[in-house]
Amino acid sequence: MKYPSGFKRNPQSLSSIKNNMYSNRGMNLEEDINVTNKYYLETNRAVIHKKPTPIQIVNVHYPKRSAAVITEGYFQRSSTTDYNGIYNGKYIDFEVKETKNKTLFPLANIHEHQMEHLQAVLNHGAISFLIIRFSVYNETYFLEIDKVLPYWEQKLQNSKMSIPYNYFQKHGYLIPFKYQARVDYLSIVDQLYFPNGG
Amino acid sequence: MKYPSGFKRNPQSLSSIKNNMYSNRGMNLEEDINVTNKYYLETNRAVIHKKPTPIQIVNVHYPKRSAAVITEGYFQRSSTTDYNGIYNGKYIDFEVKETKNKTLFPLANIHEHQMEHLQAVLNHGAISFLIIRFSVYNETYFLEIDKVLPYWEQKLQNSKMSIPYNYFQKHGYLIPFKYQARVDYLSIVDQLYFPNGG
Repeated sequence: MKYPSGFKRNPQSLSSIKNNMYSNRGMNLEEDINVTNKYYLETNRAVIHKKPTPIQIVNVHYPKRSAAVITEGYFQRSSTTDYNGIYNGKYIDFEVKETKNKTLFPLANIHEHQMEHLQAVLNHGAISFLIIRFSVYNETYFLEIDKVLPYWEQKLQNSKMSIPYNYFQKHGYLIPFKYQARVDYLSIVDQLYFPNGG
Repeated sequence: MKYPSGFKRNPQSLSSIKNNMYSNRGMNLEEDINVTNKYYLETNRAVIHKKPTPIQIVNVHYPKRSAAVITEGYFQRSSTTDYNGIYNGKYIDFEVKETKNKTLFPLANIHEHQMEHLQAVLNHGAISFLIIRFSVYNETYFLEIDKVLPYWEQKLQNSKMSIPYNYFQKHGYLIPFKYQARVDYLSIVDQLYFPNGG
């Protein structure tokens, strides 16, 4: 992973680093999801958290009488998705990605172990999906994992594989933007999994 | 958080740092749980992962043509538990702690937001519990969150509160040690939540 240079003394996590890359268009998708999850938590609707970014720690310094300082560390790829939790008694698991592309979502943005993880939890009874934002249209789609699989199987043959934008329009669900639940993906979960209420 | 000094160039995570503290008695509980989860995953029994340790990143260096290096970072407290996942269609969430104490488990080892998290997920339908090892006896107990609550409420009045060892013997479940599922906590989940099979 590489990030733009010039990033200094920002006591934040990877999400902020990523956000710097998009700073000219306000909040990025990850921050919108975090705000949404906070709202869900505070209103006792669901308990869904972002997992911390895994860091490989190589060197730690232990000053006397103060906190340990990591002096050498590297960003690692996660072996799972970034988000999971519980809603209405069901295990929820999803990955979040944003693209500037106008016509397709490149599947190279999803790592193989993330997709394996999403399939595995689906087989164990999870609600698992992708949240994909097409930033040029400011449209954010909910796409169930079983709808991703036909493309994913082709991707295993051809690493440049992608999902066309119009597939999201046809088989995905446009997530409504709300003031507090900025990316109100649970409204889609309700339609699909709890049509008669929770 | 403070760790013993002298730790250098070990390209591992916090679990290894912690493990260094216990190196004279083999694997620690966290490593046993990780081995167990790996076995559950490989045998397709459950998908349960440890969350990465949250790190506050203060400084990142971006060398040309190589990976970004974190040059200043600090260990943070997690706002949730370390472990969650899915088993038999149910959301699972737990915290893991080890004590050298012979007569009690000090509740100061569990942070307030962790306990709030465990109660919240319980209210949403999770299977949530503590796994506590009394290392002097080499006994590892499974204790459901609702069994912790009477002590937790006292702890909010008195921060030195603890749960007596014999309470674990009476109201907890001794987790069997197995060769591959080293801390086979799902065998206890089966007894308590799926008595007639999954």
